[in-house]
This record gives sequence, structure tokens and C-alpha cells, in this order.
Amino acid sequence: MHPFTQRRSASVAALGETGLIASIRRWLGPACPPAPAGIGDDCAVLPAVRGRQLLTVDPVIYGEHFDDTVPPRAVGGKLFRRNLSDIAAMGGRPRAAVVALALDPCVKLAWLEEFHRGLAAVSRRYDVPVVGGDVARHDGGIVATLTLLGEAGAGGVRVLTRTGARAGDRIFVTGVLGGSLASGHHCRFAPRLAEGAWLARRPEVRALLDVSDGLAKDLPALTPPGAEPAVEAAALPRRTGCDVHAALCDGEDYELLFAVTGGTEPEKFIRAWRRAFPRTRISCIGRFVPRGTRPPEALKMEDYRGYEHLR
Amino acid sequence: MHPFTQRRSASVAALGETGLIASIRRWLGPACPPAPAGIGDDCAVLPAVRGRQLLTVDPVIYGEHFDDTVPPRAVGGKLFRRNLSDIAAMGGRPRAAVVALALDPCVKLAWLEEFHRGLAAVSRRYDVPVVGGDVARHDGGIVATLTLLGEAGAGGVRVLTRTGARAGDRIFVTGVLGGSLASGHHCRFAPRLAEGAWLARRPEVRALLDVSDGLAKDLPALTPPGAEPAVEAAALPRRTGCDVHAALCDGEDYELLFAVTGGTEPEKFIRAWRRAFPRTRISCIGRFVPRGTRPPEALKMEDYRGYEHLR
Repeated sequence: MHPFTQRRSASVAALGETGLIASIRRWLGPACPPAPAGIGDDCAVLPAVRGRQLLTVDPVIYGEHFDDTVPPRAVGGKLFRRNLSDIAAMGGRPRAAVVALALDPCVKLAWLEEFHRGLAAVSRRYDVPVVGGDVARHDGGIVATLTLLGEAGAGGVRVLTRTGARAGDRIFVTGVLGGSLASGHHCRFAPRLAEGAWLARRPEVRALLDVSDGLAKDLPALTPPGAEPAVEAAALPRRTGCDVHAALCDGEDYELLFAVTGGTEPEKFIRAWRRAFPRTRISCIGRFVPRGTRPPEALKMEDYRGYEHLR
Repeated sequence: MHPFTQRRSASVAALGETGLIASIRRWLGPACPPAPAGIGDDCAVLPAVRGRQLLTVDPVIYGEHFDDTVPPRAVGGKLFRRNLSDIAAMGGRPRAAVVALALDPCVKLAWLEEFHRGLAAVSRRYDVPVVGGDVARHDGGIVATLTLLGEAGAGGVRVLTRTGARAGDRIFVTGVLGGSLASGHHCRFAPRLAEGAWLARRPEVRALLDVSDGLAKDLPALTPPGAEPAVEAAALPRRTGCDVHAALCDGEDYELLFAVTGGTEPEKFIRAWRRAFPRTRISCIGRFVPRGTRPPEALKMEDYRGYEHLR
């Protein structure tokens, strides 16, 4: 759906701010609790929690993260899911979201309603309320920014970060890589929340992140100092129709990438994984080796580039 | 400063995402702690806290909240301060911020550096780190969205909300109203954090909000059901050069508006305030009366409108 209209009566300008906020509450329905736990006060008020707090923010921008071909419900879903994926990447539990909308007054009400229905569906699915936000005028564009508050590390469980891998560790990735845009995966993916929480409880897992800009761009963040990754092309889990380049560079995979201690038997780890997640594919794609000792058959990762924003 | 340039070497496109994030860390300096407490992982990780959590989000948008006449340092400062004001309006304490930037690739690096110096200065002043964010491409615009996490209600102190006022309560406001844009107040104001925290500890204070869209638009949110405000024009604290209309409608005042029980002696309350905040003006501007009993000399608030977004 094209998000803009010249018919004022069908646009957000017809409602103005106050009417629009009332509509947003209605569209969100039970996804938005009453104030002060939800929309309507200067801040949302959330109960205290025991664990550490996680905070992450990601936008969707018209012309960059979506265009007229993406249904607005999928745009809202994508915005929520890409933030949930960041919480999954710390082994955390999402708690509450706020959404700031920068909108051209010509944005169609029908578009915005569907966008919020998409947010509401994800909110229900993962039990994460939308507790507040902001609506502001932005001539010529749509920028929707979602900030997610999460919790991690309650009950003595670790918060898994990107650092901590060592030379000798095996590299694992969930799902399949590449072709996210063409396949529609970028709007439909299921953030790996249960998987991330499971990994945080496994002592043999040393470091974790989510692959969002392509494995080639994201893997260096997991690579320990003095090491380099030795990844086997044949071991890369590729989406049907994707070659190695697509699997490494396309981006928007939203899969978990993590390091497991070298002393762990990979078959045993994979068996435990399959008992927990029989429907989530897992692949050991290689290992970290001391810098300069990469075997000749391994992929030259420096020849591949992931998605570089702002170029 | 005009924020855009056609000289690629002077624009954010010259750095690309990775270089830009490195520059942002440098510009923020000590305002941004190392990951995972700051920029660099999938989420920022913050320590657990005892009180309830507050979450608020507000953007600044080129063409809407600022233009070429506002120095970029003031834009960054304004973005941070307007969110701090929302935490103040709950009697809370700000803890950490994340900033999502949607940027045209032609944005001047010099503009963006100054913008971040503005964020860093406010971060230092109020001891609130910038712990993460996002940078994405947005052709034709600048939208900077800051989300602030806060804490309130630790040690048995209340979280002050907008609801709770009753007919008979007196209405107070801090500072002076009107003329925020012309005077530059909208970029320079000091969020009333200490004042908000003080009010939350005073049992005679029943409800609190911050005036951001003009008193005429924001006062209804404080007004209890079945009541209406009886505000005296002469009691309105106006900025020099502002008439009553400006004081009620201009917006961007970022002052605290609150209700105090009718049984409280206003002189006694004001004396206590002046001991705590000798330099922050406070005014009793009227009271809430049962609907239909507004005295004829009181302002007809329904004749005034505050700032309505998206019209």
C-alpha cells in the first residue's frame, strides 16, 4: 500500500494529534494497557524487576526499510520483531515498548491503522505491551522508532554479550541465511527469544549476537582479539536459491550467531538443542583460529561485505 | 547552521555507518560508557534498580522542532532536555538514554558533531549516560529520537501521575509561561528534575505534569472528572513581553503544573518551596472547582488552544 494520500479526510491530518492518539489506542487494543502503565501520562510506569535492564532501539523508515510493496501490517510487525531480535541476542526477556512516529500529515489513516494492527499482533504473540510513544509531524516522510526495554540475568543467569569468544571456539548459527528481502523473511521472521534465553543458561556458550547486517559484517564483532574465523562454505545454512555471497552479505537474517567452547562435543550440543528446539535449524559453520592460521579451504571473509548503512 | 552539504567529503556519507558510529562515540566521550553498559552490543545492559521504571520517548525533527537558525548543539540539548522534563513530570530520576538517528547522507559531519556535543553536555550536567542507539539512512530528513529510562518510587516515595487532583485543589505552576521559541527557552530550559522529585515527596501534592503544548492544552489532563479549572489571568506567570494568550497557547514551556490539596495553606507551601528552590519561581494560578461553578472573573480556558500537532 502506498502510505500517502492527497485526500485530507483519509489522512492523519483529518484527526490531528488528539484524535490520532485516541485512534492509536483503539488500534492497539489490549496491546496498550491503561495509563500510567500505558499511553497517557508523561512517562509509562513499569513495575520494578529483579534482573538487569536491557535497552535497545531500531526504526523503520519509508524508502529504506520498507516501500509501497510491503503491507503496512508487515511494516509494524517488522519494527517490533527487529527490536525483539536484539533482546534475544542478549538472552533477555522483552518487557515493554514505546513507539515514536514521525509522520507526514498526508499519511493514510488506513495505512497507519494496519501498521498498528501489525504492532498489536506481535505484542500479543510475545506478550510485550506498547506502553507509550509520541506522534509528531514530519513533512515528506515516515520514520517509526521503537524502543524496547527488556530484562536479563534474573535468577543468576548470565547476560550473554558479543564478547567472550576465544580461539578454538566453534561458531554456530540458527536458521538459514540470505535472501531475506526477496523471500519476505525480513517481515515475517520469528525473533529467537526462546533460543536466546536457552543459550544464556548454557555455560558452554561464550558469546552471542544476532545477524542483522549479514554474517560477513556481523561476525567480526564475535571474533576474539588475536583470532580469525575459519568458516566452511559447505557448512553455511543457505536459504533456497541463495549462493554463498547472498548468505554472507544480504543482511536482515535476524538469526543468532554464537560461540561454543572448543571442548564441547558439537554433536552433543546439537542433540541438546534439538530436544529444546526441534523446529529451529542449527549449524556449526566453523571455528575461531589464531590469526594467521586459517586453513586454505576456509572462506576468505574479508572478501565479503555485509550491508553498510549510510553509504 | 544549515545541516546539509553537497560536498560528500564533509557529509556523513563520507564515513559510512561504521566510521560514523566510531565518531559518535568520540563526540559523546565520557557520556557513553563502554559496551555492554554503552554503545556496541545488541542492547545496552543496565544494573537492576529498586524502584519502578519510567520510559518516555520524544524526537526532534528538522523543519518541525528546529530549523537552520538553531545551533546544532542546542538541537541535541533540546532533544535530551525535553525527555528529561517528562521524567521530572513523574517525580522520577533519569537513568539512561538511547538515541536513534534517521539521517540524510548529506547531513554535515560538522552539524552532527555539534549535535552530539549538545547531547554530551546535557548528559554530563544531569549524569545520564547515552548507552546506545541506531543510525539509519533517511533521504531528505533528520529525525533524532531519544528514549529515556528512569526510575521512580524507590524508598517508598510515590510516582506522581497526571491523575489524582480533586475539586477544591489549588493549581500551581513553576517558572514563567509563553514566548518559548522567540526567547530561546525551548533549547535552553532546565528540566525541573529536582523540583519534580521534591513534589513527589510532598503528600499535599496530588497530581503533576509538565507543560509542553501550552497550559490551555495540558491543563485538561490534570483536571479531575466533574471539575473545571478556575484560573485567574492576573496570577499567570508570563514571560516578559507575553500576553495571556501567549502564556496559555505558545507551548514548549517545560514547566511543572501540579495540584495541591485545598486544605493546604498556599503561603506555607510556597515558603517550603522557596527554602528548597530559592531560584525557581512558583505561582498559584487558581483552583479546580465543581463543573459549572467557575466564577465569572476566571479565564474561559475553552477559548484558548495549545499547540496541536499534525494539523
